[in-house]
Amino acid sequence: MAGIFQRSLRLQRALRHLVPQSPLSSTVTARHSPLDLHCPFLPSTSWQFGICCRKLHTGKDGPKPSPAAAPDRLPFSRITQEDLAFFRKILPGRAVTDPDLLESSNVDWLKTVKGSSELLLRPQTTEEVSQILKYCNSRNLAVNPQGGNTGLVGGSVPVYDEIILSTGLMNNILTFDSISGILTCQAGCVLETLSLHLEERDYIMPLDLGAKGSCHIGGNVATNAGGLRLLRYGSLHGTVLGLEVVLADGRVLDCLATLRKDNTGYDLKQLFIGSEGTLGVITAVSILCPKKPKSVNVVFLGCETFEQLLKTFQLSRGMLGEILSAFEFLDSECMRLLNTHLKLHNPISDCPFYVVIETSGSDSTHDGEKLHNFLEEAMTSLLVTDGTVATEDSKIRALWSMRERVTEALTHDGFTYKYDISLPVERIYQLVTDMREHLGDRAKSVVGYGHVGDGNLHLNVTSAAKDPALLAAIEPFVYEWTAGCNGSISAEHGLGLKKRNYIYYSKPSSAVSLMGNIKAMLDPKGILNPYKTLPDDLK
Amino acid sequence: MAGIFQRSLRLQRALRHLVPQSPLSSTVTARHSPLDLHCPFLPSTSWQFGICCRKLHTGKDGPKPSPAAAPDRLPFSRITQEDLAFFRKILPGRAVTDPDLLESSNVDWLKTVKGSSELLLRPQTTEEVSQILKYCNSRNLAVNPQGGNTGLVGGSVPVYDEIILSTGLMNNILTFDSISGILTCQAGCVLETLSLHLEERDYIMPLDLGAKGSCHIGGNVATNAGGLRLLRYGSLHGTVLGLEVVLADGRVLDCLATLRKDNTGYDLKQLFIGSEGTLGVITAVSILCPKKPKSVNVVFLGCETFEQLLKTFQLSRGMLGEILSAFEFLDSECMRLLNTHLKLHNPISDCPFYVVIETSGSDSTHDGEKLHNFLEEAMTSLLVTDGTVATEDSKIRALWSMRERVTEALTHDGFTYKYDISLPVERIYQLVTDMREHLGDRAKSVVGYGHVGDGNLHLNVTSAAKDPALLAAIEPFVYEWTAGCNGSISAEHGLGLKKRNYIYYSKPSSAVSLMGNIKAMLDPKGILNPYKTLPDDLK
Repeated sequence: MAGIFQRSLRLQRALRHLVPQSPLSSTVTARHSPLDLHCPFLPSTSWQFGICCRKLHTGKDGPKPSPAAAPDRLPFSRITQEDLAFFRKILPGRAVTDPDLLESSNVDWLKTVKGSSELLLRPQTTEEVSQILKYCNSRNLAVNPQGGNTGLVGGSVPVYDEIILSTGLMNNILTFDSISGILTCQAGCVLETLSLHLEERDYIMPLDLGAKGSCHIGGNVATNAGGLRLLRYGSLHGTVLGLEVVLADGRVLDCLATLRKDNTGYDLKQLFIGSEGTLGVITAVSILCPKKPKSVNVVFLGCETFEQLLKTFQLSRGMLGEILSAFEFLDSECMRLLNTHLKLHNPISDCPFYVVIETSGSDSTHDGEKLHNFLEEAMTSLLVTDGTVATEDSKIRALWSMRERVTEALTHDGFTYKYDISLPVERIYQLVTDMREHLGDRAKSVVGYGHVGDGNLHLNVTSAAKDPALLAAIEPFVYEWTAGCNGSISAEHGLGLKKRNYIYYSKPSSAVSLMGNIKAMLDPKGILNPYKTLPDDLK
Repeated sequence: MAGIFQRSLRLQRALRHLVPQSPLSSTVTARHSPLDLHCPFLPSTSWQFGICCRKLHTGKDGPKPSPAAAPDRLPFSRITQEDLAFFRKILPGRAVTDPDLLESSNVDWLKTVKGSSELLLRPQTTEEVSQILKYCNSRNLAVNPQGGNTGLVGGSVPVYDEIILSTGLMNNILTFDSISGILTCQAGCVLETLSLHLEERDYIMPLDLGAKGSCHIGGNVATNAGGLRLLRYGSLHGTVLGLEVVLADGRVLDCLATLRKDNTGYDLKQLFIGSEGTLGVITAVSILCPKKPKSVNVVFLGCETFEQLLKTFQLSRGMLGEILSAFEFLDSECMRLLNTHLKLHNPISDCPFYVVIETSGSDSTHDGEKLHNFLEEAMTSLLVTDGTVATEDSKIRALWSMRERVTEALTHDGFTYKYDISLPVERIYQLVTDMREHLGDRAKSVVGYGHVGDGNLHLNVTSAAKDPALLAAIEPFVYEWTAGCNGSISAEHGLGLKKRNYIYYSKPSSAVSLMGNIKAMLDPKGILNPYKTLPDDLK
């Protein structure tokens, strides 16, 4: 009882601090610390798919491949000296064949997939991309489009010897209209560079990711990246206003409109958002950007049950309304890993569940008052048992890191099996509980965290080392459980190489079949990002 | 000077009224008065396309048809007694052939297009729609999908004898999740019915249209309807989470997800949003709905120049921020027509431009303060010269009607040529000015109004009667002008029958060609809504 009283006191002190409120920083808080997408390389996770691929490629008596393993190499042409001469001519000094320089482009960020491409092309213009694809299509050469190579499902690296087509040198900001907030840029612009460019002009990007220092906007669009601002600003299907895309045969599709409304025919750009480079190469993007919020607050709260956490979410939607910009959660297992592996100190008392709430608004006094009223109601209703409030940049960053560094903590816990699941919001933690019970002692840790506001759970299971028996216990259990709730087996990471064969858990065969028709229509030879997104059994 | 002082005084009185503010109504203001889509039938506008079609169909020596006229009837089958027997069997009592009952379904809302369908089918279930299309496809019978028939471009009625497939009896609300705010319903639900259903549950629909009392959600999605809330809640490409669609051959495509995030393969539903019933028949929709705002305010302001109006828009975005929910405008010519034809009284002094601003928020005190500060700044900076504020429902409705009833006023002014243009926001009024100068005395009135926040101008030109010479002076001038600014010749109305051949002003031929490929893939016999959306010259 004394403990509860003490915790309440702490929150009340925080509340007193909040109203009347000290002026908040007028800048949006930069979050440079690693997020979901970032973890240091672990030797134990290295090359699992690379090995698998090689086995499939070179031998026939290995173990039966998992659905995630790559299929045999398709009968694409192999690069000849004539091909190289062509690429060197149209891309002087930008057709890279040095194996050392190719190394990092052949390996995905998690170091779980490794290709063996011998050619990296670095075009600077749409015309060059067009020439490359026209040539590759005529020669039946496979192409792996690559942005910042920060994907988590093996979609951004070659599986065999596909030519890597990097957007790295296509990094020009083309226009920014400060009245409408519409930005147009080449596909290779790094997300963080765009964010900084906009913040100087009193705008922000409508998406924010942990990988923002590396990822390219073209890759973000190609993978329909979600991230931290989706709750507030919606998906890229709504904010992307135009795309320029080079099709497999080199045709340039100019849908780079900069208009909020345009109902002249089918909205073709939508096809390429989330198609993971399998339907075309995005070369330029126009996107609607929101005004930079003048005030940002972050609170870190503790809840006794997930039901209380959900009630807190509902309360926040009602009382914080239009200023609510993030509602994230982590469980006590995540906190244990943060403490153990990263020595991060729990800023409040121990609870089964923790919540990070961010508000972004145009008036710091109003925002502070809304937050104060919400917290008072949440405390009075006993929905939250403890909490702390941050209005200053450094403390905001510290609180965010409790959510953002969970992935990093996990990498120190052992080999990690990662799942990115969409579910009806009221079900998202049940999967963690059921998985924990299902696995029993077989797992080292089973943790859940993610974007409550979007119904998006990051479920992670660790073991001391790679463990096929554990994997067999997790899958297809996790996918069947998800399908049973009409959930999605990939909320924001995409399918790439690793999850392509699990698509039927979330999509009916009629839809998958139509996807195949669209692929065949736009890329009849299948040269664009082969072995990705679409399942192997697609006819 | 005295006049300016008096006007300032009025606005200051309004401001005093605003802060401290009286409690606002907690309901969202219903706007039942006609909007852009509504105008009484005018004899002078009747059957212009109907006549045109008949001429094309029955004679060869009439005048050269305009690009808007329908092409010759395509070689679809004609309905036989066997066909009728089949439809009567699967839709007992719901296969309508009585000409009187068919009359209203054969004519569009503006009474400018008239078809001659002899069969109206009224399915209740997806399975029935599937059976209908499977049969029609096998028999090569053309089908015109029809929702509330409120479209403005002749897309929702048959051109010749297409079978009308109405969604009118598919009007069940399937589920509403009060935690996530996700609604699923059949395609024939009337938008206003859904709005009322949600408002009882403390939510609203993310779109609002003048036609809401008649239009169906399926039609809204099929035409990618814009409307009054787009500025705040974005387009249907972002808010529609799932669709169930019956394809031309009767296959049911179940993409009726109820998840905010799902990156498992291509986002197929996007293809059908805005495809105007030419790629499939939408049978069910899931859509993300926002919480009902607790406070709504409306202000009506006058500006001396359009430049000041744009600066006022910029100021409102900065100072009203997250509570800004509409920024609409009308010019003094609109006001003259409102006065003359509808006897509506200008609530402020005469100005060249008028602005309607709406705020929607979660805290009436905060919203009132933000609005007060914004208005004070707008006055002090001399951006607005007069204005009035409404916090009560009846006055809010009165102010909204000044914007919403412009279309109605236009119908009393004579024959109306209507254009729905997207432009970079800073250019939108230049088109009105240029058109006025270009037409000189040939036009009776040239007026501009619309959605400043979306860069969407409604340009209307009236004449005493239908006037081919005037039309020739307007078109292609208006389309060329728009194309010169990379604008869209149809921001929200779509292409339908009337504008299909103007698509090249806003889309490159490579995009139009790809649209044709998609149409051929999904509807190889072209039975779905023929003569619409795609241009006649499409191969």
